[in-house]
Amino acid sequence: MKLNEQELVKKLTEREITDFYFAACGGSLNDLYPAHYFIEKESRRLHSTYLPARELTLTDPPRWNEHSVTFVLSHSGNTPEVIEAARLAKQNGSFVIAISHDPESKLANPDLYDVFYTYEWDEKTSQQDVPMGMELRILNEYLHQTEDTYQNYSQMLAGLGKIDQIIANAEKYQLPAAQKFAQKYRKQDFMYILGSGAARSQAYGFAICSMMEMQWMDCAFIDSAEFFHGPFEVLQDDKLFIQCVNVGKNRVLDTRSRDFIQKYHGQIEIIDAKNFGMEDIDDAVVDYFNPFVFYKMGVLYRDQLALKRAHDTDFRQYMGKVDYSYKSIFS
Amino acid sequence: MKLNEQELVKKLTEREITDFYFAACGGSLNDLYPAHYFIEKESRRLHSTYLPARELTLTDPPRWNEHSVTFVLSHSGNTPEVIEAARLAKQNGSFVIAISHDPESKLANPDLYDVFYTYEWDEKTSQQDVPMGMELRILNEYLHQTEDTYQNYSQMLAGLGKIDQIIANAEKYQLPAAQKFAQKYRKQDFMYILGSGAARSQAYGFAICSMMEMQWMDCAFIDSAEFFHGPFEVLQDDKLFIQCVNVGKNRVLDTRSRDFIQKYHGQIEIIDAKNFGMEDIDDAVVDYFNPFVFYKMGVLYRDQLALKRAHDTDFRQYMGKVDYSYKSIFS
Repeated sequence: MKLNEQELVKKLTEREITDFYFAACGGSLNDLYPAHYFIEKESRRLHSTYLPARELTLTDPPRWNEHSVTFVLSHSGNTPEVIEAARLAKQNGSFVIAISHDPESKLANPDLYDVFYTYEWDEKTSQQDVPMGMELRILNEYLHQTEDTYQNYSQMLAGLGKIDQIIANAEKYQLPAAQKFAQKYRKQDFMYILGSGAARSQAYGFAICSMMEMQWMDCAFIDSAEFFHGPFEVLQDDKLFIQCVNVGKNRVLDTRSRDFIQKYHGQIEIIDAKNFGMEDIDDAVVDYFNPFVFYKMGVLYRDQLALKRAHDTDFRQYMGKVDYSYKSIFS
Repeated sequence: MKLNEQELVKKLTEREITDFYFAACGGSLNDLYPAHYFIEKESRRLHSTYLPARELTLTDPPRWNEHSVTFVLSHSGNTPEVIEAARLAKQNGSFVIAISHDPESKLANPDLYDVFYTYEWDEKTSQQDVPMGMELRILNEYLHQTEDTYQNYSQMLAGLGKIDQIIANAEKYQLPAAQKFAQKYRKQDFMYILGSGAARSQAYGFAICSMMEMQWMDCAFIDSAEFFHGPFEVLQDDKLFIQCVNVGKNRVLDTRSRDFIQKYHGQIEIIDAKNFGMEDIDDAVVDYFNPFVFYKMGVLYRDQLALKRAHDTDFRQYMGKVDYSYKSIFS
C-alpha cells in the first residue's frame, strides 16, 4: 500500500498512544533514527525507543503495549529479527507500521502488521517516498494533529519538498572530491567517520554499510561530540577521517572536531551539508534533513571507491551466502 | 555529599517527574548508560533520554523541564560540556543530580545542581559507591517507591551486594588470558570490540577510553546485534575481535557473533561474564550487572597492553595538554 499519512494518522488517533518503538537492523535501523530523533526533539508527550530489532524482542519492555506504535522496516522484507519483532509487537497489542521494498516478502503477512507500506527504490523516486521521508511525513502529521504546541508542520512539509533538489546538488557538488578521494585512498586499510545529531546513524551507516559491508574496509564511526573525550588521542598525520558536517543545531559539534583534526595534521575529507543548498530549509527543522544528505554521500563515496578498488558493491562473502540463522523466540 | 538514596528519593517524590535525562561525555557518559537502560527496561511510565552533554544542551528538547530529573556526571568535575548541561538543566527547572570525584571542582557549585554527590575512586571502593552503582541504587529506590508494578527491588539490592565479589572473580579469572593477549597482540594496529545490551556502552568504552585514549590504538565498537547487518563482511582470518559476552537476556546476541567469528576463522578474544559467578545474581536483574564486569575488563586488558607496549595509560598527547575549548552557549 502507498502511504497516505492523513489516513494513517486518523487510525492512530483512535488509540491512546504514549510510546513509539523503532526496530530494525543495519541500514534499515539507521533509516529509522531520524524519526526517533524527531520525536525526541519535538514532542512534548511521546516516549520513543530506538533499538536493534532483536534487543527489543529479547528484552520486551513493559511499555511495549497497546498504547504504543511500532515501526518495523526491512528493505528485503525477510530479515528474521524484524519479522520476529513485528510478531511480538502485535502480540503485545502495539500498532505495527511495517515498511518494506518487497510487497511479496515475509513481512507482507497481515499477522505481522496493522498497516504495511511498500516503497520504490530507484533513482527517480522522491526522498519523500522512501522510508526516511515516509516516517517524517507520518510523524509530522501525527504531532500536528495531536500536540497543540507543535509549530513546525508547514516548515517540515516545505523541507520535504526541497530535499530532492538538495540531494541532487550534493551529488553534483561532491563528485569530484569523491573521485579524488577514491584515487588517493583506494589502498587505505582503515578510517574513521565522524558525524552527529540527526545524521549520527547515517554517518554510522557510512561506516558499517557503505565501507564495511560493501567495500570490506575496516572503519569506525565516532560521534563528533565524543571525539574530544577519548578518541582524539589516536590522531596522527597518518590517520584518515571523513567528517560529516551538519547544518543546524549540531553543526558546532562537527566543526569543532573538523578544526582540531586539521590543526593537528590528520588526513581529513570534509563533507559539509552547507554546500548543498540546505539554507533553503527553515532553521527550525533543517536538522532533520541532514540524514538524507549523508546517506547519499555514503553511497557516492562507496561507489567511487568501488571503481578504483574493483570491488563491486554487490559482492558479499557472508550475507545471503552462508548460514547465520538463529533460534527465534517463536520457533 | 555521600549518597543516601532514601533521602534523595524522598525529595524526588515531592515533584511530578515524567522524564530522566542522562548527560555526560566519554567514559562518564558510558557510566550513565546502565541507569538509562534500567529505566527503559523496567519503568512503566518514565521516559529516559541518554545523550552526549553538548547535544542535549544544543538541542534543548521541550520535555527537559520541571518534570524532569537530570543526571550529570564528570569524573574531574570540570568537563565544560557537563557544566554547561547542568546550568541549562537548572535554568529549565530540571532537578539536577550532579556526581563527581572531585568535591572542589567547577561542578561543585550550588548554581549547577539540586544535589551533589562525590565518590572515591580507588581499589577498595565498593562498586555500590561509584557512579554506576550509585545510579542504580537511586533508580531502584525510585521505582520501588513510585511504581507498584516494579518487582525487582530486593533482587537489585542483593545483586549490588554481590557485584564486588564477581568483579574480583573476573579480574582473577581473566588475568592469564589478558596477559597472553597483550603479548600476542602488542603490535596490533586495529581491532573490533563487540558487546550488547546493558553492556553496550562499556564495550564501546573499552574501545574509545581503554584502547583509543589510553593506548592510542585504533579500535571500533560494534553492537553484537548489528554484526550480521553489514560489519561481518570484513571478517577474515587476519582480523581481531574482542567479544564481550553478557549473561542475561542479550546473551544470545553475543554468542551468535562469537560463534560466527570462530567458524570463519577470525582471531577472537572471548570475555564471558558467565565465568565470573554471575549466576549468583537473580535472572530478573542480572542484565544490569554486566556493565560493571566489562568496565573492569577494559581496564584489565588496557593495563596488560600498557605493560607490553611500554605505553603508560596516563600518557596523553592532547587531552589536558592542548587547547580544544569551545564557545559555550552561556559565554
